[in-house]
Amino acid sequence: MSKPIRVIQFGLGAIGRATARLVLKRNTLQLAGAVDPQFAGRDLGEVLGWRRKLNLPVRAELAGLSADAVLHCTGSHFDKVFDQLTAIARAGLHCVSSCEEGLLPSYRHPALAKRLHQLCVAHHVGFVGTGVNPGFVMDTLALVLTAPCQRVDALRIRRVVNAGTRREALQRKVGAGMSPAEFRVRVGGHVGLTESLALVADGLGWKLDRVTEQVAPVRAARTVRTRYLTVNRGAVAGVHQVARGYRGGRAVLTLDLQMYVGAPAPRDEIEIRGDPPLHVVVAGGTPGDVATPAMLVNLLPVLVAAAPGLHTMKTLTLPHGAR
Amino acid sequence: MSKPIRVIQFGLGAIGRATARLVLKRNTLQLAGAVDPQFAGRDLGEVLGWRRKLNLPVRAELAGLSADAVLHCTGSHFDKVFDQLTAIARAGLHCVSSCEEGLLPSYRHPALAKRLHQLCVAHHVGFVGTGVNPGFVMDTLALVLTAPCQRVDALRIRRVVNAGTRREALQRKVGAGMSPAEFRVRVGGHVGLTESLALVADGLGWKLDRVTEQVAPVRAARTVRTRYLTVNRGAVAGVHQVARGYRGGRAVLTLDLQMYVGAPAPRDEIEIRGDPPLHVVVAGGTPGDVATPAMLVNLLPVLVAAAPGLHTMKTLTLPHGAR
Repeated sequence: MSKPIRVIQFGLGAIGRATARLVLKRNTLQLAGAVDPQFAGRDLGEVLGWRRKLNLPVRAELAGLSADAVLHCTGSHFDKVFDQLTAIARAGLHCVSSCEEGLLPSYRHPALAKRLHQLCVAHHVGFVGTGVNPGFVMDTLALVLTAPCQRVDALRIRRVVNAGTRREALQRKVGAGMSPAEFRVRVGGHVGLTESLALVADGLGWKLDRVTEQVAPVRAARTVRTRYLTVNRGAVAGVHQVARGYRGGRAVLTLDLQMYVGAPAPRDEIEIRGDPPLHVVVAGGTPGDVATPAMLVNLLPVLVAAAPGLHTMKTLTLPHGAR
Repeated sequence: MSKPIRVIQFGLGAIGRATARLVLKRNTLQLAGAVDPQFAGRDLGEVLGWRRKLNLPVRAELAGLSADAVLHCTGSHFDKVFDQLTAIARAGLHCVSSCEEGLLPSYRHPALAKRLHQLCVAHHVGFVGTGVNPGFVMDTLALVLTAPCQRVDALRIRRVVNAGTRREALQRKVGAGMSPAEFRVRVGGHVGLTESLALVADGLGWKLDRVTEQVAPVRAARTVRTRYLTVNRGAVAGVHQVARGYRGGRAVLTLDLQMYVGAPAPRDEIEIRGDPPLHVVVAGGTPGDVATPAMLVNLLPVLVAAAPGLHTMKTLTLPHGAR
């Protein structure tokens, strides 16, 4: 067996902690450190909620740590985490990031994407942004499903999440329990949906004339109680977000994301209009809290083996599970 | 736009002809020649059943043709087409092949696979075997679906094809209308199922203790009439083939292929036992007659861009559709 990849976990929020736990389970990986100013000085075992110490003190910053790669889980916006990403590249570390805009940084931040690419090449490391959404169900999986198609005319991708089965932070984030007025002010919608759309369009070689995105509240048809909160009938149960890509006046790409408490028939669904047409359903949907850490960790050996530079899910070899 | 890839279609059976037709539709590809001793001297347009000539005479062999790549559709067994594949590599041509054993040539023919790999490297070209099955539904798609899994305990992959909706050759091949005695003599089963199994196991890093494969006739519960033949009640309607891979005495990989006339609820179905468990259904299934040419043609630019040598679906970048 080849030597384990030495990994630093950067960011210890809910996803970062779950990612660190998964790294500790894999004998192909070795957790070499953890970075998060919020927990600096504490033992990682304690931060992960374990009884035993890991003798791994959480650092406030990267400097001084030695490793091969970073799993980066700190923020959704590429420009806001850009300084962290350049520090990682300059330290000669590969980086798999859950940063949503990192799925396709060139979409919103072409100049920054180019700079990160150059830095990665100069330091012989790779970068990729991934996760379950964006990163898998509404982009990578949809793209793979077009491989057996002679012709693709249009794609409709739908993800329905019953937020009531997810962690409290997600229930709050989608606006569950808010008034419509509060929703308008406080819920910006899921970051990364248009990046997913752009990645699919790019893979299919489609130049889009126009991309639209709408974020609207879903109102509860009846009172819904979750473990964490109650949504009264008529209050906001969550969010319905739709991104559309147009070619020649026609919506050829529709990404429809529904995340609300009490959502019936949760699922991931991909419909391809083309030759052949295909209709694919992931029954119950792909659970993000488990699947995002899995995507990050499973992509790590793939990225390490790739050519240096800024990658996307489309430029790396086939993602898949591992021991 | 980059220059079109110049392609030779090698083999003009049903899949080869469908592949040539698809090449002719893509402006990123240019059909530079066709090879098939059976049609040598005839115009390709005529062989494809068109009214107009293509001014492209079919050749008996590769020698003398100039191109970048070959789409190879002549046989299922890697050793039997090996001389064709080495000729293609020696001519400095990339090759995407529908050869079923070519999905993972090292599984049954490790020495030949190594020789082809060395030839490919020496001549700076790539080789990959693909198609819809093997090549997509029972291997590549299943592997991709493990990417969001923290842990995979077992995989069950099922493909149910209503052979009654497929071309006559396939209906005959699966034994439709035969007596059970005739089936035993004449139906060897689908080639490539164990290669699919081995590719998935390899991707997941699983060393299998044992692989089994069973081929059994499906008997018609009632009389079934297709466009081409009639299967009386009790006669053979088609084939049921199951390959299993074991670890520690437990079947961790089950590939269940059912191809018979009158099969109800045709579908491709992938069940992952693990964390998270996933259950994915391609409703109606992925139609092979359309999808296999699509896989071959869509893989071509991916292979051309890859490092020279013998590839598998696991060593190439994400497959997807294209214009």
